[in-house]
This record gives sequence, structure tokens and C-alpha cells, in this order.
Amino acid sequence: MSTKNLDNFKESGDYIQSLERGLQVIQAFSQRHKSLTVTEAANLSGLSRPAARRILLTLEHLGFAESQNGVYSLTAKVLSLGYSYLSSNNKWSIAQPIMTEFVRQTEESCSISILDGKDILYVARVFTKRIMSINLDVGSKLPAYATSMGHVLLANLPEPELETYLDTMDFQRFTDKTITNKEEMREKLQEVRDRDWGGVDQQFEEGLRSIAVPIRDRTGKVIAAINCSAHAGRISKKKLREEFLPLLRTTAEQVGEALESGNRPTY
Amino acid sequence: MSTKNLDNFKESGDYIQSLERGLQVIQAFSQRHKSLTVTEAANLSGLSRPAARRILLTLEHLGFAESQNGVYSLTAKVLSLGYSYLSSNNKWSIAQPIMTEFVRQTEESCSISILDGKDILYVARVFTKRIMSINLDVGSKLPAYATSMGHVLLANLPEPELETYLDTMDFQRFTDKTITNKEEMREKLQEVRDRDWGGVDQQFEEGLRSIAVPIRDRTGKVIAAINCSAHAGRISKKKLREEFLPLLRTTAEQVGEALESGNRPTY
Repeated sequence: MSTKNLDNFKESGDYIQSLERGLQVIQAFSQRHKSLTVTEAANLSGLSRPAARRILLTLEHLGFAESQNGVYSLTAKVLSLGYSYLSSNNKWSIAQPIMTEFVRQTEESCSISILDGKDILYVARVFTKRIMSINLDVGSKLPAYATSMGHVLLANLPEPELETYLDTMDFQRFTDKTITNKEEMREKLQEVRDRDWGGVDQQFEEGLRSIAVPIRDRTGKVIAAINCSAHAGRISKKKLREEFLPLLRTTAEQVGEALESGNRPTY
Repeated sequence: MSTKNLDNFKESGDYIQSLERGLQVIQAFSQRHKSLTVTEAANLSGLSRPAARRILLTLEHLGFAESQNGVYSLTAKVLSLGYSYLSSNNKWSIAQPIMTEFVRQTEESCSISILDGKDILYVARVFTKRIMSINLDVGSKLPAYATSMGHVLLANLPEPELETYLDTMDFQRFTDKTITNKEEMREKLQEVRDRDWGGVDQQFEEGLRSIAVPIRDRTGKVIAAINCSAHAGRISKKKLREEFLPLLRTTAEQVGEALESGNRPTY
């Protein structure tokens, strides 16, 4: 389908609005909203109360949600939707051995993410030991503005998209160091663009610092970001920049090449 | 909603069939079916061609699928659906520190899964190093009949449900040792029930053996299975049974208790 057709598609008879709404309601559940009443689900997903109610009842019937006294929560079955992607078209698994080699050399964790709305979405991850207080499996999301991979991905957005992002961003202060205003963010992203790498030092979580570089396709287009995250008490900013950054750049290049050749049709 | 109402719900005006169909189409993608034409998606999900086409077009419009020359594949955005569960109602994360302690003591991997249709669905996982040829992140599924956790979960099904499972099972031979007939399976499950643990030795993958025990709630009901999987060349069956099994039973009890207290309302 061409881009033009995609734009008009919502008005076409082929569009299934209730499928969009159903997926919206699933995505309304989050760390902040672990369980939802019909009214809360309606408010969060911008639907009418009756529409949200029918969707929650259907999800419950299908085993994707459960309810107690009118409060709904998701079930583990929702995970199996993500698995449909992981098992079918997970092109990022090709990066796993390359990332493992990076982790072996640095003894620090390595992740790849892409931009999904205002968040970065983890698509591959190799870690040594858990250093963060939250679980960051593949499929996890973090706000782009507070992460090194987010900075790299935002810095490489087309200008109008970036402006929309900055204009509609709802900055949250995770630590003393989190960047929480548009102007400061714009400056930071210019710096990231100029030197072609991103770094955050305890902007998302105390004790955690990370650096990230872009992964590019053959044409030079940024398709993802790759990072190295480390315990701030163990790895200095100097070590990250001088020792790990060159290694991370090589890793990013190798992943980019592997993705290209992995995608190349065989003749 | 009571069970009775759930049964009648599909006939009620509240049921949204297109949401069920949309989720079916997402789940039609798998390792065997990495990309699908409209006709293939229709066949796999039991839908008409026009219905499957509208769903795929809608998924593409929403960014959950992409197409090239009429062949559809899922995008990483599908992962974010699973994340809605992981970040909101992931009661299994409470098991993580207990499993980590088991892994520290045994230096082998530990997982928890539940039954999802004919498969086991991984809901928590702590591993030392990757020993399997496939990626088994949280959200992954494996056929219940070929895994130790599957044996434990099947052995604890009510008799009629187990019979339906066995009658409709489509056994696949993964290795020389895979159990592929109903009678042999029934006997194996009786053994698992009697001794209250399951074990497979290279029935799913060469070089991989594992043991599993049930996780029970306060009433004694089996709510999940927990396993220890190890490289067959490194860990003998005897060691698994005599050293790791007692430790795994203790771990299972601790997880059961943690789940109960984690779910207990605070007064």
C-alpha cells in the first residue's frame, strides 16, 4: 500500500475501527495504570464508555483480560501476541551474536531499540547482570528523552517530526539530571547529531549511565540505536567514551551489515 | 463476569468479533509462517479472504504489520502489546529474586510458564547463559507435550480437559526421544502426577534436559510450573534429580508463597 493510500485508508470501507480500539485499550494498561475500570479505560484510550466496556468484555472472553469487581487487568496471554512477532519476523535476532561479542569484551550490557511514538522500544538485548531496578526485556519501552538510545533516535528524526515530538512531550523528572525542557533538549540533540553519539549520565535512573550510537542501513538511514549501559560506580564516563564508544561503533556497523545481508534475497 | 455469562457472551450484542479476528491474525504469524499472503492468513486463522485482507490492511495502517508485494509480516510494534502486560500486571516479576537465588546456587537456568492452549507460555525466566538454539524470552511458547513444564501442567489438568488435549494434539517429532503418541503420553503424565515432578531428556532439543515441578496456590491448585534446564553434556540426570530437584521444590514453594502475599490486599 502506498503512503497516499495509507492516509486515506481510515476513511475507506476496509478499515476496521474496532480492531484499532481494541489494541488501544490493551496499550492503555501500563506501569501507572496496572488495572482499569471501564471509565478509566475509556478516558485513557479516548473512547466512549460503552465502546470501552464492549472491548474489555471481549478481551476477557478471549482470555486476554480478567476482571474482579469491575476492575480489569491484562493476562499473560497478551505476551503471546508479542511472541508472534518474536518467532516470525524478528530480524533483530541476527544481531544477537554480534552484541554478545561486545558484552564479552566490555562485560557490560548491550541493547538495540527503535522509536515507537514517544518511547524507545527494546528489540534486542544482551546483558551481563541486571543493574537496573526495572525489568528491561525485549518489548520494554522507556521514554526517549531520558535515554541515550532515545537521544540518538530523536536526533536523527526529520526536523518536522522532531518539532512535533518536542512540542507534545510530557517531560517527567526521573532524577535530578533528567532534561525536562524543550530548549535544553533541542541543544542536547544538536550535540548528539554533531558528534554522532548519545550519552546519558543518571538521567533516567541513579547509578546508571549509558552511551548509544546509530545503526544505519546501506543508504545511511538510521534504522535503530544500539547502546552500552553500565553501573556509574563501576565505569567512568571517560572509560565509556574512550574505550567502549569505538567498540560500540564497530558493533553498530557489523549489525547494520548483518541486517542488510540477512534481508538480502537469495538468488 | 460469571462462567455462564462468558459462555453466552459470544452471542450477545456486546461481543466484538472483529477484535477476536484481528488478534487471531496476529497469532497466525509464527516461526513456520514468518510472512503471510492474504490467502495464507485467511487459511491459518479460519477467516474468509476479504475478512483477512481487511484485518491485514488495518494492522498495516496502525503500524503493527508491513507488506511487500502482497506479503505481510509483523513489525516490532507488536512487541509493545506484550509490554502492556509486562509493565502493568506482571505478577510473576515477584518470582525473579527467588529464581535468581536458585540460578546462583545451581548455575543453571530457571523458568516459569503457564499453559496457553496447547503450548506453555514463558512468564518469567532467569538464565545463566544461552544453551538453547532458540530464543526463549518471556512471552515465548513451546509445545506442552515436549517440555518438562508442559508435562507438569498437563498432568494437573482436570481429566476432561486433558482428554481433549490428547485427542486434538498434533504431535511433532523434534528429536528421536520426543513422545509422539497419545497412549505413551498418557502414561508419562500419570508418572508425573504420581511423583509430582516432570522431566524431559532431549525430547525437545538434542543436548537439553530439564526438570519441572508445580507452583501451587494456598488451596493446593497448580497455577504454574517452574523448571531448571541444563546442558545434557554437563549435568547428569542423577544430579538434576538428586541435587537440583529438592532445591527446585523449595524454590516453587517460595514463589507460591510470594505470589499469595504479593496478591494479598493491604489493610
